[in-house]
Amino acid sequence: MPLTVNSERIAARIDRLAQIGKISETGVCRLALSNEDLEAVLVVKGWMEEAGLTARIDAFGNLIGRLEGADPNAPAVMMGSHIDTQPYAGRFDGIIGVIGAIEAVQTMREQGIAPAVPIEVVSFCDEEGCRFNKGLFGVRGLLGQLEDGELERVDKDGVTRLQALLAFGGDPARFAESVYPPGRVGSFLELHIEQGPVLESLNSPVGLVTGISGPLWWTIDLYGFAGHAGSVPMTLRRDALAGAARIITGLQAIAGRDPGAPTVGTVGSLQVFPDSRNIIPEHVRFTVDLRDIDLARRDRLEAELRALIDEAATANGLTYAIREDTNSEPRYCAERIKDAIRASAADLGVALPELMSGPFHDSLAMSRYCEYGMIFVRCKDGISHNPKEFSTQADIALGCELLYRTALSLCAAGAPAPAEPA
Amino acid sequence: MPLTVNSERIAARIDRLAQIGKISETGVCRLALSNEDLEAVLVVKGWMEEAGLTARIDAFGNLIGRLEGADPNAPAVMMGSHIDTQPYAGRFDGIIGVIGAIEAVQTMREQGIAPAVPIEVVSFCDEEGCRFNKGLFGVRGLLGQLEDGELERVDKDGVTRLQALLAFGGDPARFAESVYPPGRVGSFLELHIEQGPVLESLNSPVGLVTGISGPLWWTIDLYGFAGHAGSVPMTLRRDALAGAARIITGLQAIAGRDPGAPTVGTVGSLQVFPDSRNIIPEHVRFTVDLRDIDLARRDRLEAELRALIDEAATANGLTYAIREDTNSEPRYCAERIKDAIRASAADLGVALPELMSGPFHDSLAMSRYCEYGMIFVRCKDGISHNPKEFSTQADIALGCELLYRTALSLCAAGAPAPAEPA
Repeated sequence: MPLTVNSERIAARIDRLAQIGKISETGVCRLALSNEDLEAVLVVKGWMEEAGLTARIDAFGNLIGRLEGADPNAPAVMMGSHIDTQPYAGRFDGIIGVIGAIEAVQTMREQGIAPAVPIEVVSFCDEEGCRFNKGLFGVRGLLGQLEDGELERVDKDGVTRLQALLAFGGDPARFAESVYPPGRVGSFLELHIEQGPVLESLNSPVGLVTGISGPLWWTIDLYGFAGHAGSVPMTLRRDALAGAARIITGLQAIAGRDPGAPTVGTVGSLQVFPDSRNIIPEHVRFTVDLRDIDLARRDRLEAELRALIDEAATANGLTYAIREDTNSEPRYCAERIKDAIRASAADLGVALPELMSGPFHDSLAMSRYCEYGMIFVRCKDGISHNPKEFSTQADIALGCELLYRTALSLCAAGAPAPAEPA
Repeated sequence: MPLTVNSERIAARIDRLAQIGKISETGVCRLALSNEDLEAVLVVKGWMEEAGLTARIDAFGNLIGRLEGADPNAPAVMMGSHIDTQPYAGRFDGIIGVIGAIEAVQTMREQGIAPAVPIEVVSFCDEEGCRFNKGLFGVRGLLGQLEDGELERVDKDGVTRLQALLAFGGDPARFAESVYPPGRVGSFLELHIEQGPVLESLNSPVGLVTGISGPLWWTIDLYGFAGHAGSVPMTLRRDALAGAARIITGLQAIAGRDPGAPTVGTVGSLQVFPDSRNIIPEHVRFTVDLRDIDLARRDRLEAELRALIDEAATANGLTYAIREDTNSEPRYCAERIKDAIRASAADLGVALPELMSGPFHDSLAMSRYCEYGMIFVRCKDGISHNPKEFSTQADIALGCELLYRTALSLCAAGAPAPAEPA
């Protein structure tokens, strides 16, 4: 089926943004609130206006374009993502969500369709969080969820977020007037690359996100007793790394038990002390990252994992401490919006596998304000946050078409009642 | 049974040496060829002379005392160890072997016993190897086993071994005349703290060493593929740490399978890349230390371990490389000398458990020159190379008594034929 959106225009815009902060052949470094970020935001603002949106940069540094609906007071359908990047990033993460949203509005206008409810397109400020080590800044600002001290955070050059925000055109004095009141937006739609290998493994260009899984993050310390690797018999050892290995192996089994479930468990960071080849490890510190879209299942697996840690410690004569660093609950996409996306995919004759999102997105913050839905686009080898990040023009265009059709459906359906804030 | 050796004299001498290079309450830092080492060697030389030995410092920095036997041309019984220490060490490692050897000779003289064969007492130069990162220097020099470039090695202050050796009174120009010809020594006896927890766990003050186990040392690299901890399903992962954990757990099982065997297996050092809590580990490098007094068994376990590594890599989609850093064979104590030690223990009514030595000692080098035997003294919690290193005065005195009686027996038995150099 031929697409309504303009695949060439989408590709050209992606290429244009990739020039701003370009590193290496295919990489981008466009840190939030940098000169490159501002340059890119102004380019995107021009595209918003070209699409018929009235665009502005709010006090938090968010770029927001609005197209009025037949009922200007109805809750808007908002679409978007972010265009800031990690320091050694690719050309697609966040970007296709902003360009796709503009494309949806521009296509609507070109098709002579006037929406029943207002449409807003947003490019949120500082989703990545790598510069000031705390992300989702713009979207949390918009929703009145900033925390104390956020403006005092400094980057590695000693620049505060306040300084960077003022230079960008933001203004803390206008924060209050930039915060959205409840009900201003009724639905949020985000198009994003998957950043994982599931769609590629299923040979599917696009996928329906069922929710963003909340991670449980622990730091675990195991304490044993050092000794000479040659002189302490196996039965008398208190080897902290032997204990850690048992826990890591057990975590693989727990998280992988049901191959159909989206549960994932990872030990990504581990340090050994004293880390000498002929000394039995006395202390091992490692992280655990456990995620599931089903919180009840995650809770059951957490209990299993705690029992496993206790058992591994006992078996190896170790003491241990578990520090909980993060404990986020999953945030589910709205059935109403998932149905709209499913219907659009069916119209297009496209298979739409369903998957959860492990990584965070701006949608995570939006989920506490209104109903949301997400569309994933296949990316090569699941690589992201890397210049090698890649999605084909055809896959991205199909994702944009799905976004366009879903937006049409949501706008025609009018304004739902706002979801209860959670 | 009352001891023949002088426990108070032994203790006083240990205390005296502990003052030279003293750190903290109970620690010692007496690096090889340092001013402190020289000061200590001169003190020990005085004790040798007090015991009736003719003492000299050879061209390698070894302190050697000799007492002629009834047959001055018979192969000598040599006893000793070293008095240099690690940088953050205790008061006993090596030291009791030197002081015990002097005590044995001094007791013999006090008992009016003249040996049938010559006795030599040695304090070998730089057993520890921590200053120039290569140990057993003096004993290897004595045996003509130094390697090219050893004198050019530098310590962390840029001092070469040559400079340090010359300042100490050594002299490369006299190396040749300091090398021992075959047959000059017929038996080597070393008393040493265990540096492990076996004797303590058996409630035994002393033990008979059956041999020094040779370590097999590997460095293993496992290569997988990084990915977001939240977005890569368990079934699609190539997690290098998951593979490493399986190998570590398997090594525990392989090395610990027979609780009666002295096999030990250790992963002491491990690094993860990129070592980030929400990134699946792409590369893990870790060491393996596998030891056994039975080389045939160690070879079988090595083959099992190789199969385990291959299996763990395959199961996790990893590639791997095994680098062999060291592959030493075990060196066994002589039956003749073990029998003499056993008989001495039986005379004393002391139980004498047998155990292997995981760590190296000067005996390891001597084993390639003549037959050797070792006596271990229990040490608290198996701690060594640490100021907390501790053995009781009674245990050390008992070890010295065993050494004394064994030396008597070996001297009376006369001169055995030299062992074949291996």
